[in-house]
Amino acid sequence: MRETLKLKVMEEVQAENDRQAQETRRKFDARGIFAINVTGAPGAGKTTSIISIAKNLKDQSIRVIEGDIESNIDTVKLDRLGIDTQQINTQGACHLDAPVIAKAADALDLQDGSLLFIENVGNLVCPAEFYVGEHVKMLILTATDGSDKPYKYPLAFEKADILLLNKCDLLPYVDFDEEYFMRGVRALNKTAPLIKVSGKTGEGYKEVADWIIQRRSPK
Amino acid sequence: MRETLKLKVMEEVQAENDRQAQETRRKFDARGIFAINVTGAPGAGKTTSIISIAKNLKDQSIRVIEGDIESNIDTVKLDRLGIDTQQINTQGACHLDAPVIAKAADALDLQDGSLLFIENVGNLVCPAEFYVGEHVKMLILTATDGSDKPYKYPLAFEKADILLLNKCDLLPYVDFDEEYFMRGVRALNKTAPLIKVSGKTGEGYKEVADWIIQRRSPK
Repeated sequence: MRETLKLKVMEEVQAENDRQAQETRRKFDARGIFAINVTGAPGAGKTTSIISIAKNLKDQSIRVIEGDIESNIDTVKLDRLGIDTQQINTQGACHLDAPVIAKAADALDLQDGSLLFIENVGNLVCPAEFYVGEHVKMLILTATDGSDKPYKYPLAFEKADILLLNKCDLLPYVDFDEEYFMRGVRALNKTAPLIKVSGKTGEGYKEVADWIIQRRSPK
Repeated sequence: MRETLKLKVMEEVQAENDRQAQETRRKFDARGIFAINVTGAPGAGKTTSIISIAKNLKDQSIRVIEGDIESNIDTVKLDRLGIDTQQINTQGACHLDAPVIAKAADALDLQDGSLLFIENVGNLVCPAEFYVGEHVKMLILTATDGSDKPYKYPLAFEKADILLLNKCDLLPYVDFDEEYFMRGVRALNKTAPLIKVSGKTGEGYKEVADWIIQRRSPK
């Protein structure tokens, strides 16, 4: 009985989330704003990747919504580089949801035509379940986290529009089975490009930036 | 209204979880079973750490409950080493809870006096919120995930009884600020020991094994 009530409430929460996400998406579209939902495990290098992509997109107006359970460490980092950022502290919640993003997007001074990065809470599970109004989902993995991730966290891989394999500068020092990893990725997701990057050396981010530009305005 | 109902259901779920966890704990205690809830982000090296600890505890009867959203990769790994393991697939759920552990513990052939590792879902957020009947919580961090983790995921650090900093063999290749990390840890948790380990070289696990023996039967 309690279990049924729990499931019913969860369904309602999900439906309300999706309704609000669609409304946010309509607002983004009306203003020519392109939104990227950036997900990945804790320490995957989400903020570093946003910074490295931004460096390769100098002609774009870039804004960031920064989701963390606590702290404003990443917002301080982004602000220092002149990237306009709105911090969200979820107070324990394990993902960003549509109501929270709708509010943050209103609070952020979003220029028409902006490119908006929404950095989700570090978590390979829950953020994959919540659409927040984004145009694309970017999933960041790392060479140091092991090659079995697609097999263990399939939903995040299924839903990704682009995958980054970060910390590739450490590949010589770790046992990462690329063939096994790619087989897992392609069983779940046939089309999303996977780009090898390194937050340390900057390798690969030009290609990511080009993909974003192409995806935003296909020619 | 919907929000209030959601919170009420969540409170009920939590209360029911704790009631069941206490019952599991009583069963463990009656049979001299010592349970360790192993948590950490995806790729932190939870399974590798359990294996490395087991190698240093040869005189103990060791059992493992292996929690994953999907796959049985880690169970196969443990079984091959002769470690008796019970796989749980949470089908999307981001953490293990007390009802699930109570069932798995019944299914596993637990000898009286066993040492039971409960490997949680890879997630630095949700598992910290659910007591499953364990005696101690072990939190595994990595040198490759960055030194800001205590500031971003405080609850997991607050609740830990022992912390392992894994992948220490990679410290020379990454920017990991140990002083900043330790300051964050000690602001949240004054007493839990932090032990540097390497799943690759085996460094540090003897010390972890000694801590478990001492904690289990203080002299």
